[in-house]
Amino acid sequence: MGRWEPDTRGRLERAAIELYLEQGFDQTTVAQITKHADLTTRTFFRHFADKCDVLFVGADELRERVAKTIAAAPPAWSAFKAAASGLNIAAAALQIRRDEAQDRRKLIRDTPELRERELIMFASVAETVAEALSERGVEDRAARVTAEAMLAALRVAFEYWGEHPDRELPQLVDETLDELKDVVGSGN
Amino acid sequence: MGRWEPDTRGRLERAAIELYLEQGFDQTTVAQITKHADLTTRTFFRHFADKCDVLFVGADELRERVAKTIAAAPPAWSAFKAAASGLNIAAAALQIRRDEAQDRRKLIRDTPELRERELIMFASVAETVAEALSERGVEDRAARVTAEAMLAALRVAFEYWGEHPDRELPQLVDETLDELKDVVGSGN
Repeated sequence: MGRWEPDTRGRLERAAIELYLEQGFDQTTVAQITKHADLTTRTFFRHFADKCDVLFVGADELRERVAKTIAAAPPAWSAFKAAASGLNIAAAALQIRRDEAQDRRKLIRDTPELRERELIMFASVAETVAEALSERGVEDRAARVTAEAMLAALRVAFEYWGEHPDRELPQLVDETLDELKDVVGSGN
Repeated sequence: MGRWEPDTRGRLERAAIELYLEQGFDQTTVAQITKHADLTTRTFFRHFADKCDVLFVGADELRERVAKTIAAAPPAWSAFKAAASGLNIAAAALQIRRDEAQDRRKLIRDTPELRERELIMFASVAETVAEALSERGVEDRAARVTAEAMLAALRVAFEYWGEHPDRELPQLVDETLDELKDVVGSGN
């Protein structure tokens, strides 16, 4: 991004979300977004692959932070605890940008195309977690199961956050992980 | 289906899978499938929404069986155990049609469009499991967490089955559920 384009990406994001919320995701075109942000369509496609992409653009960065957090967890920690620390970092990052994250959630929940995209995003986070655990020496299947169980908890906590926007996401994640321990522990 | 169309659906399924495996999913058209099955395109679309649909057409029926199994589990069983019994039924049904199920897995694994479709299918199974547990009186969040954890285990067992086609899926599901108990149990 050139110096003459301060926060172009952020402007496009805000314009897109505003229009999606106002008139619906399906009804909004890229041309309308760029007009609203006073930028060109070419600029839009320099930052985003399509109009879904605007809503998931932070995911790569978040995934990287999750991987780094898991890698940095004390070697003595269990796979579950190391993975949970990654999850907590993601939850904290989302909590900081709460209003924006909640707007996104609302849009995703109401739009089938975006829900599918979210499933793909979650699956890629699970892969990242599994890889990060493997690199800690966790056996392959245990790494995959832990990663998938973490994502299961994140999905549920996320949904709850959408329904109870005044709760704190990191706390909801902790509660959901406790719930997971309870239900799995009472398995027999 | 009329009496003059014995197993039309099965013929279309087999023709489709044969061509997908032979020449690739993306390269195969509905016209080729119907020609291969000696049927018309109109007949194809009476049975399937699109060429993805052929590979997921048993999912609704399986979901129904899972729901019924969970509903029929002894009232004293924990949410986890009831959900696991549903999962085991699904695994047994897939094991019976092993070769076909394995062909499908191969195709899904190698085709991004089908992987996305599979994620959607898994998400809908999770919803079914959560609903079936709610109807047993399991509290909402516990039901969702249990359902998502089950699907996490199913996903991993399924992947393993693809890599080790000679193993039995029901046993892989059991092993994965045990693994889940281990990793979650050693959470602290």
